[in-house]
Amino acid sequence: MNALVDMVPTHASVAALIGPALGAVADRIAAQLRSDLPDVEALCRHVERYRGKMLRPTLVLLSGMATGRQTPTPDHITIGAVLETIHIATLVHDDVLDEADVRRQAPTVNRMRGNDTAVILGDYLIARSFHLCSGLDSQRVALRVGEVTGIVCEGEMLQLSRRGDARLDERTYFDIVERKTAALIGVACELGAAASGADPETCRRMYGYGLKLGVAFQIVDDLLDLVGDQRVVGKSLGKDLEKGKPTLPLIHHLRSTAPDSHSHRVIRALIEGSAGQGVPANEIPAMLDATGSIAHARAVAGELVVEAKALLDPLPDSPARACLAAMADAVVRREY
Amino acid sequence: MNALVDMVPTHASVAALIGPALGAVADRIAAQLRSDLPDVEALCRHVERYRGKMLRPTLVLLSGMATGRQTPTPDHITIGAVLETIHIATLVHDDVLDEADVRRQAPTVNRMRGNDTAVILGDYLIARSFHLCSGLDSQRVALRVGEVTGIVCEGEMLQLSRRGDARLDERTYFDIVERKTAALIGVACELGAAASGADPETCRRMYGYGLKLGVAFQIVDDLLDLVGDQRVVGKSLGKDLEKGKPTLPLIHHLRSTAPDSHSHRVIRALIEGSAGQGVPANEIPAMLDATGSIAHARAVAGELVVEAKALLDPLPDSPARACLAAMADAVVRREY
Repeated sequence: MNALVDMVPTHASVAALIGPALGAVADRIAAQLRSDLPDVEALCRHVERYRGKMLRPTLVLLSGMATGRQTPTPDHITIGAVLETIHIATLVHDDVLDEADVRRQAPTVNRMRGNDTAVILGDYLIARSFHLCSGLDSQRVALRVGEVTGIVCEGEMLQLSRRGDARLDERTYFDIVERKTAALIGVACELGAAASGADPETCRRMYGYGLKLGVAFQIVDDLLDLVGDQRVVGKSLGKDLEKGKPTLPLIHHLRSTAPDSHSHRVIRALIEGSAGQGVPANEIPAMLDATGSIAHARAVAGELVVEAKALLDPLPDSPARACLAAMADAVVRREY
Repeated sequence: MNALVDMVPTHASVAALIGPALGAVADRIAAQLRSDLPDVEALCRHVERYRGKMLRPTLVLLSGMATGRQTPTPDHITIGAVLETIHIATLVHDDVLDEADVRRQAPTVNRMRGNDTAVILGDYLIARSFHLCSGLDSQRVALRVGEVTGIVCEGEMLQLSRRGDARLDERTYFDIVERKTAALIGVACELGAAASGADPETCRRMYGYGLKLGVAFQIVDDLLDLVGDQRVVGKSLGKDLEKGKPTLPLIHHLRSTAPDSHSHRVIRALIEGSAGQGVPANEIPAMLDATGSIAHARAVAGELVVEAKALLDPLPDSPARACLAAMADAVVRREY
């Protein structure tokens, strides 16, 4: 399985620890996305392959195991499946917004079948996820899942409303990232702990771990969009600049350069969509490197990972806790 | 309030019966769609006006009152708000699919802010609706709401996959309409009864009433799209033919005419999107009239209304039951 656990080579035990449970999550997702309509069924089978890293279920399982349960319960499996399905839905709609053609080395739904089908398929995935969540009969889980899904959408809308805005500051960037990406990852850790019967303080701490991990994860994702290798990353790159999204290295570069300098003007023009033909987009990495903007983004992500790991300190020593710490490190090291 | 109850002039008591409760539903929706982001807040205020007819909350309230409760409970109010919010979300996404510019005499979200914002706003509405639903702490309601929202999406996807298909038969048309429109209306009636403590047989019967009412409602909606007056209907018309959706009068016309006849070829070409310039789109109503296709659609809707009303027969006589019967009649009479 091509999961994030593959990135934690020093913890070969991770796969043994949660491999079977992750398989159960995948089965739960597949079972929930059955339809009597062959067309819907085929689309669901297609998007199931988007569950590549399985980051959210991995965190549900490990958080549950690090806070009270030796082995995951059926509720951990279901919560993992619910959150991963919501994540897949956001990917399907993100690809519409980004006009992306490739996702996990496969064509996107919008590319294959058009935006209309992708919009409704995303809705279907959200609905099936909430239906699965309701099966748990846990009001706490249902309320949090509904709430955090709304927060994810708020983050997306905040980002949309600031597209093409080269004056976007770091604070707003972090507000966007916390809502759009990190909140769902935080809730994965929180609900994993809650399903193990952890006390409220531990649940809050696990949410904090996930939130910081999630922000670091998105910073690296944004970095890969600028300087990654599409063959390695497996999805369309360069979309952020194309869509006028100011990400951390770009914000840092604009702050670090004089408004009339060449690179400042090039990057501002790219964000604002006012760049004419012939702008050297492939020279962007070198420009960002020259001002230390790539190093800055990596450093911010690295600090967040240190803070995230510190939140794990009060937990009893366990293989699961060690895996959570190693995953945080892996997030900033990853190249895909 | 411009509600469907306005269409029931012979039952002036309807407004008195549920007017205050409908106001409470509107307040519940507004309270659930608050955001600390001014932009999201403004968009929510805009789409709240889409809750024009308030058909689904009206049916929740009346079904509850016709099956055991003199007055609606807080649960009836919440269920009405949940289903209306899901309905508004589907309208926001439908307008993206239909490239519609006008909804309830106001610009659509896609027209005002683009497809991207409309896609995410619809997701936000679905998420906030499920969050509100979770507050009920009723697994039965949550499971049904999640299930029926998925069915609505299946109907949309089935319709999308048959766009431009002039060979679509009545059976598939009804399958689309039941899923896309009628299932949510059926669930409104079912859950209204369930929240009043009605027995399973009564809940099933109320679902059946709503399902038939919903199919009749959609048939008339499709008819208005072909022959209605945009100033009266208050939304963009002619979208079904433009989007290659074969609706009941069109299916009937194609079945009633020789393949090589003029009107058959014109309508088939319009559905298939192969019509060149100069096709007399404004002559469509007369063509459909000549084959009795408009009368056929009205007759099918009328039969469904008779069947729907028959399902109310076992209920004790009450003002609410009388209103449900009158609403069924109003659905086929409406011109908006």
